[in-house]
Amino acid sequence: MENQSESLEKIKIDSLEEILGKKFPVLDNGFVRVIDYMGGDESIVQAARVSYGKGTKKVNEDRGLIRYLLRNFHTTPFEMCEIKLHIRVPMDTWRQWIRHRTANVNEYSTRYSLAIDSTQKTDSNEWRFQAVDNKQGSEGFFDNTIGIKLSEREEELQQFAREIYQERLQLGVAREQARKDLPLSTYTEAYWKIDLHNLLNFLALRMDSHAQLEIRSYANVIGNEIVSKWCPIAWEAFKDYRMNAMSFTALELQIMKQIFAGSQHEAKKLAEEFGWLNKIEGKLSKNRERIEFEGKLETLGLKKPWE
Amino acid sequence: MENQSESLEKIKIDSLEEILGKKFPVLDNGFVRVIDYMGGDESIVQAARVSYGKGTKKVNEDRGLIRYLLRNFHTTPFEMCEIKLHIRVPMDTWRQWIRHRTANVNEYSTRYSLAIDSTQKTDSNEWRFQAVDNKQGSEGFFDNTIGIKLSEREEELQQFAREIYQERLQLGVAREQARKDLPLSTYTEAYWKIDLHNLLNFLALRMDSHAQLEIRSYANVIGNEIVSKWCPIAWEAFKDYRMNAMSFTALELQIMKQIFAGSQHEAKKLAEEFGWLNKIEGKLSKNRERIEFEGKLETLGLKKPWE
Amino acid sequence: MENQSESLEKIKIDSLEEILGKKFPVLDNGFVRVIDYMGGDESIVQAARVSYGKGTKKVNEDRGLIRYLLRNFHTTPFEMCEIKLHIRVPMDTWRQWIRHRTANVNEYSTRYSLAIDSTQKTDSNEWRFQAVDNKQGSEGFFDNTIGIKLSEREEELQQFAREIYQERLQLGVAREQARKDLPLSTYTEAYWKIDLHNLLNFLALRMDSHAQLEIRSYANVIGNEIVSKWCPIAWEAFKDYRMNAMSFTALELQIMKQIFAGSQHEAKKLAEEFGWLNKIEGKLSKNRERIEFEGKLETLGLKKPWE
Amino acid sequence: MENQSESLEKIKIDSLEEILGKKFPVLDNGFVRVIDYMGGDESIVQAARVSYGKGTKKVNEDRGLIRYLLRNFHTTPFEMCEIKLHIRVPMDTWRQWIRHRTANVNEYSTRYSLAIDSTQKTDSNEWRFQAVDNKQGSEGFFDNTIGIKLSEREEELQQFAREIYQERLQLGVAREQARKDLPLSTYTEAYWKIDLHNLLNFLALRMDSHAQLEIRSYANVIGNEIVSKWCPIAWEAFKDYRMNAMSFTALELQIMKQIFAGSQHEAKKLAEEFGWLNKIEGKLSKNRERIEFEGKLETLGLKKPWE
Repeated sequence: MENQSESLEKIKIDSLEEILGKKFPVLDNGFVRVIDYMGGDESIVQAARVSYGKGTKKVNEDRGLIRYLLRNFHTTPFEMCEIKLHIRVPMDTWRQWIRHRTANVNEYSTRYSLAIDSTQKTDSNEWRFQAVDNKQGSEGFFDNTIGIKLSEREEELQQFAREIYQERLQLGVAREQARKDLPLSTYTEAYWKIDLHNLLNFLALRMDSHAQLEIRSYANVIGNEIVSKWCPIAWEAFKDYRMNAMSFTALELQIMKQIFAGSQHEAKKLAEEFGWLNKIEGKLSKNRERIEFEGKLETLGLKKPWE
Repeated sequence: MENQSESLEKIKIDSLEEILGKKFPVLDNGFVRVIDYMGGDESIVQAARVSYGKGTKKVNEDRGLIRYLLRNFHTTPFEMCEIKLHIRVPMDTWRQWIRHRTANVNEYSTRYSLAIDSTQKTDSNEWRFQAVDNKQGSEGFFDNTIGIKLSEREEELQQFAREIYQERLQLGVAREQARKDLPLSTYTEAYWKIDLHNLLNFLALRMDSHAQLEIRSYANVIGNEIVSKWCPIAWEAFKDYRMNAMSFTALELQIMKQIFAGSQHEAKKLAEEFGWLNKIEGKLSKNRERIEFEGKLETLGLKKPWE
Repeated sequence: MENQSESLEKIKIDSLEEILGKKFPVLDNGFVRVIDYMGGDESIVQAARVSYGKGTKKVNEDRGLIRYLLRNFHTTPFEMCEIKLHIRVPMDTWRQWIRHRTANVNEYSTRYSLAIDSTQKTDSNEWRFQAVDNKQGSEGFFDNTIGIKLSEREEELQQFAREIYQERLQLGVAREQARKDLPLSTYTEAYWKIDLHNLLNFLALRMDSHAQLEIRSYANVIGNEIVSKWCPIAWEAFKDYRMNAMSFTALELQIMKQIFAGSQHEAKKLAEEFGWLNKIEGKLSKNRERIEFEGKLETLGLKKPWE
Repeated sequence: MENQSESLEKIKIDSLEEILGKKFPVLDNGFVRVIDYMGGDESIVQAARVSYGKGTKKVNEDRGLIRYLLRNFHTTPFEMCEIKLHIRVPMDTWRQWIRHRTANVNEYSTRYSLAIDSTQKTDSNEWRFQAVDNKQGSEGFFDNTIGIKLSEREEELQQFAREIYQERLQLGVAREQARKDLPLSTYTEAYWKIDLHNLLNFLALRMDSHAQLEIRSYANVIGNEIVSKWCPIAWEAFKDYRMNAMSFTALELQIMKQIFAGSQHEAKKLAEEFGWLNKIEGKLSKNRERIEFEGKLETLGLKKPWE
């Protein structure tokens, strides 16, 4: 196994060592940097071969094996890689981040130390509208005139909050209590350690277009700048088999079979049975599953069998 | 097993059913209430007996078994009890709470809905001084004159923050972004589900005198008002064997042996070797381990073998 | 929310209460039975509404909500349901089962008690051939003549193993050591408690056709006999969106777009680039990804664009 | 922080690098070896300092910090160290090992590959008697005459089991089924990856005198040969504050206070109230808590206040 894995390992070291400790900036004052790591593509192979009780043969077999494992949900070998990141992130984003429970965390303590004197400031061209169709999303940006006003008001609030924090500390209020009204935009820092399998789960959710822009910015950096260098083969497989894959539900598959059999009519009948084609005042009413399916058909270059 | 467990179960139901759904107030506007639970003292016994492959014999044996299990770190039977709480808690406290990873959580979403219009307000007599000896603690309260001023200033800030939040929403800023400068004192709500073993770990840490007053208030309610009724025997054992137990380190044990052997001199010599009695300008310098040990000796009514 | 959830809850109770405690037989002497449960479809809805901060409106909205959550990987509300099973299972199967780490377990102890006097016996018509294409699978059954011989030999071994176990115990050998040569076919028992989200993950892997027949038999009972009654709406969604869904990789999607655009030639060219159409002595060599894709095309009633 | 941590790191590398990959034999044919590791004492310090937001000052402060963290259950910095072991272990021992859920595991697959042709054989002088007082323990060894007989019988069984396994494979029985009657003494192998905090929990339980001799042998090697070199300061703290510490329950503390106050009579009265001194036919009946306490008093060189 030696020769092969050594070469996989060499590729990784060459590219990851270059970025070790390097701060990748995110948002206006956040960052992500790699503190340490253990393993890489070669460890996935190595762990899988323990299960299979076999030695490695050829270079391209390693790539094939990693891709096979990822495609078929053989997730345990991916847990054999571990990475430790140092991140600086607004508390608001951290509130989402920390919901991923399978990681090791040491966060900067504002009980013990003064809160970091930095808040995430939204630039005048970064204010986003509430999405109309997605109750938990945003879409489009405010024009700069309103943006400037919004940013000014934010600045006022952030400064006032800091002023109050300082007042309290000068009077001798305990740090653990003085911090209670800091804005969620206040930056915090943490060491965050996680294995590759759970990191990919994190990325699948947080690089998704439905994730909030802020955490997505961090996820994109971690994925595209770090994992891509750390475990390039696993990363490629992740994109091919998970990020850019498309899943069809049992209901969608039934309809597609009718489409491919040339039975547009039957396809439409199924959709009606599923309640996808209900109408209100003669117009198709909003139906999430139908809309999702129409999107998939469009991606594939297929026409929808209704209308 | 039937008769016995039925009676254990009856005791529980009588006392827990009374509080099911009842809101226990915490802080100025928070609460804890039980939504649902599974099992109780009788399930601990039942699970342990699966391991032991035996039937129950007498009532007092159940109590003895639960106490034996807890005393000896046989933790798995305690995982067989599960409880689901509905809590309302300031985000600042929630930041500590969520660090306990072995729970199931659904938190109120301020991406999807408007932030709860309530912030935790500190009353004029509740402002605490920074502790001198404990960098992450507080001690003593401000007098009311200063307290009133501090509370007024807090009110100003919280109102301003809410005003800005409203402004943004009225302009059409996305909820996920509008919330970014809300103060950490803003209340959130969550369903929090956890098994008894992990809940006791939570309580051991958060009922401790070193835990911050705010989260301690929640932990005290959960322990004293809820677990005490849900699993009264396990709760009693937890207090006897964990909360009110005292541990002596290998170093402390060595010194104690010398004390009990009547060798005060040897005891002191050991402490010197451990570096506990270093002096600065003729005075004992601060040494955490020595101070901790002196506290334990005092509790036991023993004199320290130095000075 | 009351009326609606009450009716969901009623449906569940009617069907689940009937099977509470009932032993569902699996294999020759194993079983699964429900000891206790917490929540159901209505708790998924209830937890989701905490996140969304809204009350329920209509019956069909609950079903739609559960289906939406499952389809879109909003997994946390499913963690709010918990079930406790009592199972009897051969140690060999248990070795696979216990690999699922997110469960609470109390297993029968053969240190403390005598090993259960029962081994899983393979009937003469149940012996399976090694699969040719799948190194970790089986396919087809031996004919009865050989089967009888295999079962007889098994009986000899299992009896001899039990004899040795008894010998040791009679001599006074410690139970923890006497058990060391028991066959993996020996039955064990356990209480196994898990939340619905993690249970569905277990079922997705263990009801799959690639799972070993023995554990699949348990998974089928848990899914079809228990979860289907406990959380019927979530169960239906699980089948529609997960069990019977089909995922297409980024590579497959590229080829499909060409097929639907009528460019069979381009489709084939892509497959060549992907290395799916390599030939050995003029014949397509075995390529796992191509074979998987061909299977999917067949299911959809589509022709493969090569040959 | 640089100088100091570098020197801590250097110490570790010097001693751990020497054993990297080295097989430490355990039992007759098992082993443990380090495949990879991440971090060490210096990472514990580094992570703690993220929380505290401070730089390191002096060498002895690092040692003091690690000891402080471990003594006071500040466990998260210990999660920042990770180690990957390759182990070979009888399946019977593995059944206990795998109960520790917070680890990453890749086990040798006997579905995919032939079972390892090795079983753990008990030498004639290694057979242990069932403990009288501890239902789940053993004590003392059989004399060699009986031991030889026991080992011969074991050999017969293990050979027969292997013979049947071979027979099945030669007939073409699937590996996943052929293995079903292998004895629990059959060796398996695994990669086992875990963080230092969880590893110390494992060691506290499995190095304990109540753990079964076989798994204790593995735990002793991991602790004494590996962790002691990997994180020598944390290891020393673990022994001082956990392994060799002694805890007194609330009940024991009450009695001790009376002893130290010179009130033997009151001490005895308390024990009576606790039910520790019940008599059967004029003799103290067996009471686990009393016996445990008597053991602690003896260790401290104190007399028990009864009899």
